[in-house]
Amino acid sequence: MIYLTRRERFCAAHRMFREEWSDEDNHRIFGKCSNPNWHGHNYTLWVTVKGEPSEEYGFVMNINILKQIILDNIINKIDHKNINLEVDFMKGKIATTESLAMAIWNELVPFVEKTGASLHCIKIEETENNSIEYYG
Amino acid sequence: MIYLTRRERFCAAHRMFREEWSDEDNHRIFGKCSNPNWHGHNYTLWVTVKGEPSEEYGFVMNINILKQIILDNIINKIDHKNINLEVDFMKGKIATTESLAMAIWNELVPFVEKTGASLHCIKIEETENNSIEYYG
Amino acid sequence: MIYLTRRERFCAAHRMFREEWSDEDNHRIFGKCSNPNWHGHNYTLWVTVKGEPSEEYGFVMNINILKQIILDNIINKIDHKNINLEVDFMKGKIATTESLAMAIWNELVPFVEKTGASLHCIKIEETENNSIEYYG
Amino acid sequence: MIYLTRRERFCAAHRMFREEWSDEDNHRIFGKCSNPNWHGHNYTLWVTVKGEPSEEYGFVMNINILKQIILDNIINKIDHKNINLEVDFMKGKIATTESLAMAIWNELVPFVEKTGASLHCIKIEETENNSIEYYG
Amino acid sequence: MIYLTRRERFCAAHRMFREEWSDEDNHRIFGKCSNPNWHGHNYTLWVTVKGEPSEEYGFVMNINILKQIILDNIINKIDHKNINLEVDFMKGKIATTESLAMAIWNELVPFVEKTGASLHCIKIEETENNSIEYYG
Amino acid sequence: MIYLTRRERFCAAHRMFREEWSDEDNHRIFGKCSNPNWHGHNYTLWVTVKGEPSEEYGFVMNINILKQIILDNIINKIDHKNINLEVDFMKGKIATTESLAMAIWNELVPFVEKTGASLHCIKIEETENNSIEYYG
Repeated sequence: MIYLTRRERFCAAHRMFREEWSDEDNHRIFGKCSNPNWHGHNYTLWVTVKGEPSEEYGFVMNINILKQIILDNIINKIDHKNINLEVDFMKGKIATTESLAMAIWNELVPFVEKTGASLHCIKIEETENNSIEYYG
Repeated sequence: MIYLTRRERFCAAHRMFREEWSDEDNHRIFGKCSNPNWHGHNYTLWVTVKGEPSEEYGFVMNINILKQIILDNIINKIDHKNINLEVDFMKGKIATTESLAMAIWNELVPFVEKTGASLHCIKIEETENNSIEYYG
Repeated sequence: MIYLTRRERFCAAHRMFREEWSDEDNHRIFGKCSNPNWHGHNYTLWVTVKGEPSEEYGFVMNINILKQIILDNIINKIDHKNINLEVDFMKGKIATTESLAMAIWNELVPFVEKTGASLHCIKIEETENNSIEYYG
Repeated sequence: MIYLTRRERFCAAHRMFREEWSDEDNHRIFGKCSNPNWHGHNYTLWVTVKGEPSEEYGFVMNINILKQIILDNIINKIDHKNINLEVDFMKGKIATTESLAMAIWNELVPFVEKTGASLHCIKIEETENNSIEYYG
Repeated sequence: MIYLTRRERFCAAHRMFREEWSDEDNHRIFGKCSNPNWHGHNYTLWVTVKGEPSEEYGFVMNINILKQIILDNIINKIDHKNINLEVDFMKGKIATTESLAMAIWNELVPFVEKTGASLHCIKIEETENNSIEYYG
Repeated sequence: MIYLTRRERFCAAHRMFREEWSDEDNHRIFGKCSNPNWHGHNYTLWVTVKGEPSEEYGFVMNINILKQIILDNIINKIDHKNINLEVDFMKGKIATTESLAMAIWNELVPFVEKTGASLHCIKIEETENNSIEYYG
């Protein structure tokens, strides 16, 4: 079994909050991340797939196909966007990195499986200090 | 002459646009950076000061003092904020990294000079690929 | 299950040696790392916890609480200190990165468990080239 | 159980292709990586071994021994070389990063096992964006 | 005056040698970099331009235009290529990073000047340890 | 004129203090960096030389010669050592990064000049956040 990882990056605005709470409550729970005027990040995304390298080509999956799947289904929908307002697969969710990792998993899994490989891990780094991993 | 550099980081939302232009014109000039719903970045800021190391202490400037000047005057005002809406020293300016570097220079110069050192350079990295330097 | 990782850094002096051995024997086993006058490193520490994101907040654990647990119990006791002489949780141990990872695990595990999450991994990078992981 | 990782780097030329295919077919499958005039990379290699730290020394394995095993058996044979033409353990294989990771695993496993530790993972980064992991 | 830097990357094969010398002489001068079977690198290129930010747009130069100039004139001609055999602007030159920096300067200078900005610096990193800067 | 930079790294212990001051005074000025039991860092050193590339070889200076000059005169004397106690060129100086940069400049300048190139800059990074440059 071989694990193949592709890194992509995107810049986006977000805010962590629950609509039904007051600004004070949101600030108490989510701190400065609940700022009503938004803030943003350079997110780094690592998508890991696994499988056995084919005898014919010697790779698990053509990395350009993996790259294209990620660009079409994630990066082009989220880069330079507002995660809370404009990203269809995040609608109705709190815009934590945890939710984002699970949503990206759900978006990618059918496209990765069509190639014969399996999705193994979604890792997102929000800052140099904070990151999330999700294995489905 | 010795050059001393302190790195700090902040996360913020911004949008590049001119209010008097249409959304189409803003998009034509500023591309996806003019998204009306904001986007954001993890900015990295390097502040370089210069001077001769004192004989008594062996340093140009106490790096903890430099750090505190940057935190008080820049980071605490801009981190997890919206640069266009909430940062006093960016009011009325287009939120380009160029404008930001010049504004940060102007904010820091009196505080650095009070210490006996000189401000030499403001460098800001918006993404791994794009950065700006300003020498006053 | 979601894995959440927080990075913190500290600078410390150490020496690898066994008191009951001669300097020559220590040098034979531990090489230049046994220098009796100490040497030091910028250590990078990654603490990974795991759990299910709560429905209410959308995160596994408030990252600011995790950060505070690490600062209070590890960083404030080890940063700018001598690991062999001054760090209570390393008393009587050889100051290898392996021992350090296990000791940090033991320090953190009760505080992490009180939050409802589980401690998953302690990773320490001693230099760009050498690192250690411990999963309990 | 402790996991110990050593990073080493090498620069090499390669080309992805199957001799029995035409240049056009190779280009269709392998894209610009099949360029007949070669191209190259700065590869980063992480070798992870696992074991229990000895009571006597406090480490899983002397990192200088691990370093020497990697230099003797991998780096000195592949650094500044052509992977397709000059590296004995890659003879007859398609020069994908997948094949490289498996071949390096096979080269290292007997030398690591002689030390009493176990080989756990070979990770190779071909570029900042693309990497491979192999666990045997 | 503001300095704006764009980073781009490319992977290429090269060999340092003079055709009129023997392999032994080339090896004596250029070491393992003269390997007749080629080797390669992930090169990182930073292009710095300078100018005054326009009042209208607030930037020195549209970074997307700078990016496109670099892609069209450098990256698309050198990425996944053999620098000695396939890159027109390196024909007849020894493939050192020094020559490469000067050649890239010459390629870019007319295109940058047409935009109203000035070319300030070409920086190339061949490995984490070795880099070159050229200011014209 | 071409600028060539070589990066090397070393790990060392140090303490910032003046012997004639009390521990309290040292702590007031130098903070936790004056810890009497030492602390340490992974220092990164960049040495930049400048000159015109020779027509014969196409480089400013053989990078392996520059590397050897730095190893012989700096790294082998300071790596895994105590800067205050064991490094001859730092005797009698306060162990600030500023003093270190100036001392390294003085050590290297005669060896670099013998090669026909000129020493341009010594840059030292003490942590990811703090660095010093010295141009002679």
